[in-house]
Amino acid sequence: MNWEDLAKELSVQTDSKIVLLVIDGLGGLPVQGKTELETAQTHNLDRLAMKGCCGLTDPVFMGITPGSGPAHLALFGYDPIKHQLGRGILEALGSDVEVRQGDLVARGNFATLKNGLIVDRRAGRIPTSECERLCGILNKTLAGQRDPETTLFPGKEHRFVARFRTAGLADGLTDADPQKDHKPPVPTKPLAPEAAKAAEVINRFLDDVVKILKDETVANAALLRGFSVPPSIPQMQDLYKLKPATIANYPMYKGLAKLIGMTTYDVGPETKDLFDTLEAHYKEHDFFYIHFKKTDAAGEDGNFEAKVRAIEEIDAFIPRLDALKPDVLVITSDHSTPSLMKGHSFHPNPFLLVSPTALPDEIGVFTERECVQGLLGRFRSIFAMPLMLAHAGKLKKFGA
Amino acid sequence: MNWEDLAKELSVQTDSKIVLLVIDGLGGLPVQGKTELETAQTHNLDRLAMKGCCGLTDPVFMGITPGSGPAHLALFGYDPIKHQLGRGILEALGSDVEVRQGDLVARGNFATLKNGLIVDRRAGRIPTSECERLCGILNKTLAGQRDPETTLFPGKEHRFVARFRTAGLADGLTDADPQKDHKPPVPTKPLAPEAAKAAEVINRFLDDVVKILKDETVANAALLRGFSVPPSIPQMQDLYKLKPATIANYPMYKGLAKLIGMTTYDVGPETKDLFDTLEAHYKEHDFFYIHFKKTDAAGEDGNFEAKVRAIEEIDAFIPRLDALKPDVLVITSDHSTPSLMKGHSFHPNPFLLVSPTALPDEIGVFTERECVQGLLGRFRSIFAMPLMLAHAGKLKKFGA
Repeated sequence: MNWEDLAKELSVQTDSKIVLLVIDGLGGLPVQGKTELETAQTHNLDRLAMKGCCGLTDPVFMGITPGSGPAHLALFGYDPIKHQLGRGILEALGSDVEVRQGDLVARGNFATLKNGLIVDRRAGRIPTSECERLCGILNKTLAGQRDPETTLFPGKEHRFVARFRTAGLADGLTDADPQKDHKPPVPTKPLAPEAAKAAEVINRFLDDVVKILKDETVANAALLRGFSVPPSIPQMQDLYKLKPATIANYPMYKGLAKLIGMTTYDVGPETKDLFDTLEAHYKEHDFFYIHFKKTDAAGEDGNFEAKVRAIEEIDAFIPRLDALKPDVLVITSDHSTPSLMKGHSFHPNPFLLVSPTALPDEIGVFTERECVQGLLGRFRSIFAMPLMLAHAGKLKKFGA
Repeated sequence: MNWEDLAKELSVQTDSKIVLLVIDGLGGLPVQGKTELETAQTHNLDRLAMKGCCGLTDPVFMGITPGSGPAHLALFGYDPIKHQLGRGILEALGSDVEVRQGDLVARGNFATLKNGLIVDRRAGRIPTSECERLCGILNKTLAGQRDPETTLFPGKEHRFVARFRTAGLADGLTDADPQKDHKPPVPTKPLAPEAAKAAEVINRFLDDVVKILKDETVANAALLRGFSVPPSIPQMQDLYKLKPATIANYPMYKGLAKLIGMTTYDVGPETKDLFDTLEAHYKEHDFFYIHFKKTDAAGEDGNFEAKVRAIEEIDAFIPRLDALKPDVLVITSDHSTPSLMKGHSFHPNPFLLVSPTALPDEIGVFTERECVQGLLGRFRSIFAMPLMLAHAGKLKKFGA
């Protein structure tokens, strides 16, 4: 019996509300002695730390640098090693592409093919309207093929999502992408016999694109990567008896949330929009996942100062969370993104839980190095969900 | 290889002695800023904390509120998710009912049946002598049935334990108890096909009771719940090469201890009786589990002051433990019972280990919030047993 079985047995529906704010990539490393979080002025986060209890989390386990998928799944109580998600699936769901069991999806680029070489993997970053026009042409022409049913969904600039719908598709396929310019196109290869049919379908599609777009000069070929079929993954409603909502404005996080049964909302691009949406729908749900992206983006850019400013920006909105008086408020990150490393890292995440049922600890400053002294100690992110449910009174006693 | 296999391989019999004092439900939550343990004057516990090392435990894992069964099993080194115990089994063993593999036991109530409705689920809490008389009548009459062999064991007031002995019984049965007064009796239902025979046997017994007691006016029916068969669970002797003893005066804790092979003693109801019994049998065993109940009882009653007094009461007896100079002394709780929550909770348990082989830490006050700063950190209760055995020199080196 694992946590998923236990959750199904012990969870109960109640009126209490849980708010989980994920400050993406929050954890950092010191520059001139202080991390981004230690440098930022965070009066509101510090005030919450004073009221609640703190800890440090490892998304997968110590030393593992997670992608956004596994890092978030762990926070929602899913074992990230058991439930592995293809990037294509996340992209598809986040782009509002309907995906059924049996579909195969991939992330696509339009590219420029010249004299048998891919000379520009991004087709000069064609305008989004061009991408829409080309997807339209391809969808219309490919509609003549009854099997598979192939549909392209335009994204921004040269990007699209491809969906293949027919019986017998499996994932486990290499990327059909030369990765560098001035190389010939590469077909996908199946990594296991059951993906052979999918490889054939995909490679035929790539050939068809070149034929159909033969009169185009800039975007006249397609690259595909991240082939994936939807995983069978339990829904949050079934595991936890929650009515969960996602307040995020980036496709991938919305996609991930949809996959596990969360309601998603259209949220504007500003930080303020996250909180407006939360307040507008606060009565309708009992679990809210709010995703703040700017900290991670600044970390990825290696911009220490921008990350400090992003932390201060989100800190200013904390009183709006507080004012809702959720039964459990958790503020943490999915993974660390030290600007020093310009990418995700394996460092642990500051974790803060505020609830009337929590035992407050002595921590009064919300930073990586203070949190380790907190009552929650250092723990795997997969325990965040049992902790939130427990403090919200949503888990019955185990055994007599 | 799990801990059980490792324990069998690594444990060695030695003369060293381990004393484990379980202060039931010790962990709490603050009222006016301080928990029960922080409020109590505990000079003796604090003095031990100064000598030893401290930590905080999670009985199952973070967020899970355990019943007494799983919480204790974890302290004895048994995975509480792997070894799940029925309430009926604990009650039976604690009531000195002999239970063999293949038996099915349940907790029973005498009840009042009138015009087809259970009008009093406790039969007016009949005196214990009445319960004994009725069990006697039923046992005598049912002795005529050769299959199954059914025996009732009277408890206090209206309570009894029922034991069914015949081939082919399995548990996985709903309670035969309407849960509320003024409802008709409910038969048990099997939750899986293998429990079908047991359901038939039980429902026939319930009908027989009504027939046999038809001339009784108050206690003329029976309710049964918590149907369970004895789990097959390894014995402490086999796992750890210990001669373990339980010093407890509540049936359920003695029952649990018997199940894993511990010797139990008749202990009087006073706190003093626990220590008298321990001293009387100190030469005969190398592992002692002492169970102090009053802290949990006060927590369940929501009585903060009574819990503080109970903590101070047990603190006064600590010098008697100390005087025995055990090689390892551990003082902890099975689970938390904050008086604020009037019940078991998921909060972690203070844990204190004193041994000449321990590395003492800086903790000098035995409280929930001090313990987290201790050398042992926050850990799952299942590691208590390896820690105790190790500090007592009862675990060989693993690997070469």
